[in-house]
Amino acid sequence: MANSKFEYVRNFETDDRCLPNTWIVVRVDGRGFHKFSEKHEFAKPNDKRSLDLMGKAAGRVMTEFKEICLAYGQSDEFSFVFKRDMDLHKRRASKLMTSVASIFTSAFVFHWPQFFDIPLKYPPSFDGRVVLYPSTQNLRDYLSWRQADCHINNLYNTAFWTLVLKGNLTNAEAEKRLCGTFANDKNEILFSEFGINYNNEPQLFRKGTVLVRDKKKKSEEELEGRLTKDILALNEDIIGDAFWNNHKILD
Amino acid sequence: MANSKFEYVRNFETDDRCLPNTWIVVRVDGRGFHKFSEKHEFAKPNDKRSLDLMGKAAGRVMTEFKEICLAYGQSDEFSFVFKRDMDLHKRRASKLMTSVASIFTSAFVFHWPQFFDIPLKYPPSFDGRVVLYPSTQNLRDYLSWRQADCHINNLYNTAFWTLVLKGNLTNAEAEKRLCGTFANDKNEILFSEFGINYNNEPQLFRKGTVLVRDKKKKSEEELEGRLTKDILALNEDIIGDAFWNNHKILD
Amino acid sequence: MANSKFEYVRNFETDDRCLPNTWIVVRVDGRGFHKFSEKHEFAKPNDKRSLDLMGKAAGRVMTEFKEICLAYGQSDEFSFVFKRDMDLHKRRASKLMTSVASIFTSAFVFHWPQFFDIPLKYPPSFDGRVVLYPSTQNLRDYLSWRQADCHINNLYNTAFWTLVLKGNLTNAEAEKRLCGTFANDKNEILFSEFGINYNNEPQLFRKGTVLVRDKKKKSEEELEGRLTKDILALNEDIIGDAFWNNHKILD
Amino acid sequence: MANSKFEYVRNFETDDRCLPNTWIVVRVDGRGFHKFSEKHEFAKPNDKRSLDLMGKAAGRVMTEFKEICLAYGQSDEFSFVFKRDMDLHKRRASKLMTSVASIFTSAFVFHWPQFFDIPLKYPPSFDGRVVLYPSTQNLRDYLSWRQADCHINNLYNTAFWTLVLKGNLTNAEAEKRLCGTFANDKNEILFSEFGINYNNEPQLFRKGTVLVRDKKKKSEEELEGRLTKDILALNEDIIGDAFWNNHKILD
Repeated sequence: MANSKFEYVRNFETDDRCLPNTWIVVRVDGRGFHKFSEKHEFAKPNDKRSLDLMGKAAGRVMTEFKEICLAYGQSDEFSFVFKRDMDLHKRRASKLMTSVASIFTSAFVFHWPQFFDIPLKYPPSFDGRVVLYPSTQNLRDYLSWRQADCHINNLYNTAFWTLVLKGNLTNAEAEKRLCGTFANDKNEILFSEFGINYNNEPQLFRKGTVLVRDKKKKSEEELEGRLTKDILALNEDIIGDAFWNNHKILD
Repeated sequence: MANSKFEYVRNFETDDRCLPNTWIVVRVDGRGFHKFSEKHEFAKPNDKRSLDLMGKAAGRVMTEFKEICLAYGQSDEFSFVFKRDMDLHKRRASKLMTSVASIFTSAFVFHWPQFFDIPLKYPPSFDGRVVLYPSTQNLRDYLSWRQADCHINNLYNTAFWTLVLKGNLTNAEAEKRLCGTFANDKNEILFSEFGINYNNEPQLFRKGTVLVRDKKKKSEEELEGRLTKDILALNEDIIGDAFWNNHKILD
Repeated sequence: MANSKFEYVRNFETDDRCLPNTWIVVRVDGRGFHKFSEKHEFAKPNDKRSLDLMGKAAGRVMTEFKEICLAYGQSDEFSFVFKRDMDLHKRRASKLMTSVASIFTSAFVFHWPQFFDIPLKYPPSFDGRVVLYPSTQNLRDYLSWRQADCHINNLYNTAFWTLVLKGNLTNAEAEKRLCGTFANDKNEILFSEFGINYNNEPQLFRKGTVLVRDKKKKSEEELEGRLTKDILALNEDIIGDAFWNNHKILD
Repeated sequence: MANSKFEYVRNFETDDRCLPNTWIVVRVDGRGFHKFSEKHEFAKPNDKRSLDLMGKAAGRVMTEFKEICLAYGQSDEFSFVFKRDMDLHKRRASKLMTSVASIFTSAFVFHWPQFFDIPLKYPPSFDGRVVLYPSTQNLRDYLSWRQADCHINNLYNTAFWTLVLKGNLTNAEAEKRLCGTFANDKNEILFSEFGINYNNEPQLFRKGTVLVRDKKKKSEEELEGRLTKDILALNEDIIGDAFWNNHKILD
């Protein structure tokens, strides 16, 4: 039963190395998370447990892949940025995106009991993709796109669920009420009708989570609440320049 | 904070649809499973619990993706065959391979306690890849390649661990003893020195596991030991024609 | 001035080998041939000189690439079919399509004076592409698609230019007259108004040109009118089975 | 003969758009030019007529594609640099490389009689490829690589053919003489044995040809010797910064 006569099938595999000197972004997205969040009774509009678990899983990915310099997540998605000069797995796209998706999923299931009291009803999953960005500006615009998306969705969801949960509207009524409204309309509804200042909502919900490495020695106190000894989770604006000036990550 | 000025970054995503009318194979492989199997004290040369858990996880993938007509696994790998005319996710390679790798991993972690008494020490992971086969013969040769690989490795491992565990050789001595030997030499060592007839070893170890769909109604008794109501796990030869004549899977 | 410090740029080249065991089709298309045909006063609706020159250029491509088993052309396009098991240039798509486009173009310009009395006014060009077909049926359907396209366009053009040249309609009037008509309407216009039986039009115009290899020894007489000693130009139906039964090209 | 039942074959075409915001380089290379140059009795080690014809053909490519900002050629190759933000043909690699290869070839054959007294014996051809460079430094290194290659080959060829043509060595003897020599050895052979100062050889041979656009108005006199009114052919060093400081091409 020699293997050699079958081995020609290896030639059907393709070489999918990412173009050198580009930023490699792997983004994972929850598959069927609308249903998953309902089955597991996620709080609306945001479930802090889930967001923290997402951050925990992302931290695990960064621990396994030192070549990742930053990760950004919101809702049921997380993006991982590989340094542009890295050569892990010869930059093969398949290897990178499947490994990231698998590690992320594994850690999500593994750490579930630390964040949720109810047990998992079935195994959740995440798909993944690779996107290349040639310039640092392109990469920053990508991250800005995801954070702006977080803002837009969260403002909508906050208004929607406030109308439903506090305003006693049906889902259909709330949807209709918000149809065609702009950001300031939604802010106004929240403030004038429910006394909610959207800008005081938790940064975690409004900004998402950015993970960075920080190898400076820290006191026990400072380490409190960190993902790992070396990885810091922040809920800051990453669209403006301030964050990037503080953290020389992409230089 | 309009999103529109950043949205151009979506144009950097590439279209990676698989060529139509080809068999799409997604194979997942354990990442760092040598270390993982040691940390979790897998039996040598084969750990039935692990192989059964792999089969369970593969069954979950087939349950989520009806477009998969067959799966074959051995050791820490599993291959999934999508029907050549399927159009799931527009046949996008990224989506298919990351989803399969993620579902497989998720189910592996989720079902771990059903198969192992000791808890998982850390989250395991699997990478994945897509390979296309234009003809049914190419696909059969691919599956033959994997099963021949199973046979070759298992014969070696069985001889190696018998020499170590029953023959009291060190790992290095066993390796030296087997260096340069052919299949019949290994069979002979097992038989004459340890009274082991390799052909009587469990089919699970020698042939791996092939999962097929079987929608015929079954009695309670027949359903016993099945992965799911509709998925059957077999440990048969898939290199010869007999299996394919019985199961009209690729026609 | 050592070259070594710059040589890293070679790593930016990608491997674009075509999937093994698939039919590789390279199609070349005239660039800006509407204008080109006007500037060089092509006869309407078909210019036999141009079609013959296209065939001549295609023959040159087949002479250089023995791995091409068949070529089919019509209007300003030509498709070349590489045998599915061939390994020329490691099946690299870039190499194959640029070489075919270049040889075709070169021969078109080189042989121009044999077919046209007026000199070329400027250098014409052709773009190219590669398409893979996994099954022989897919390939036959591709070739049928191109020949059906030839028929549809030629029937339209024959009707259009007959209305203009013999019916004294303006281009706009002819276009309007044909708008929304079916094949049988166009046949009827040609027959009842101009006494033209479309089916008696030259096969070259209605069927296009298929080039095949024929290595049987031929008498001087039989060789007459051949493209080369070994390549035969035919104007036959390639949609039905008869052609393929006669020429065992794809078996 | 409806076309619709065959049209599904279009789905087998792939989308091969180049990553946005990268420099697109198309390089064409002579196919079988060793034999071609012998058959057409090219002067050794350099044939000025051939190099000028190459430049002429490259100028034609730049005239058709305004999106090309620079071209560099030497020996039987020419590289074309498309501006990084251009969107011609949706940046489809196939379209770009086949068009460039075809136009170049067409112009080479078309203009041959302007440069050579002897007629073309058969149609020459060029293959092509696309390479992407994410940063301007990568692109400059690519161009430096090609010019350094020009230098290395030309110094070797100059020494080789001087030994053969003036030193009366056989080809084999000349090859042996140069085997293992460094640049300064070759310079020394040329100078001490033949009185040739390599640095006084024509820049065309030592540096190759770079084509740039220059839209400044010129006097009749200044236009003399230009490729076209707007395209300038230079034989300058493009490895150092001086050229790039003079011509703000990549900014």
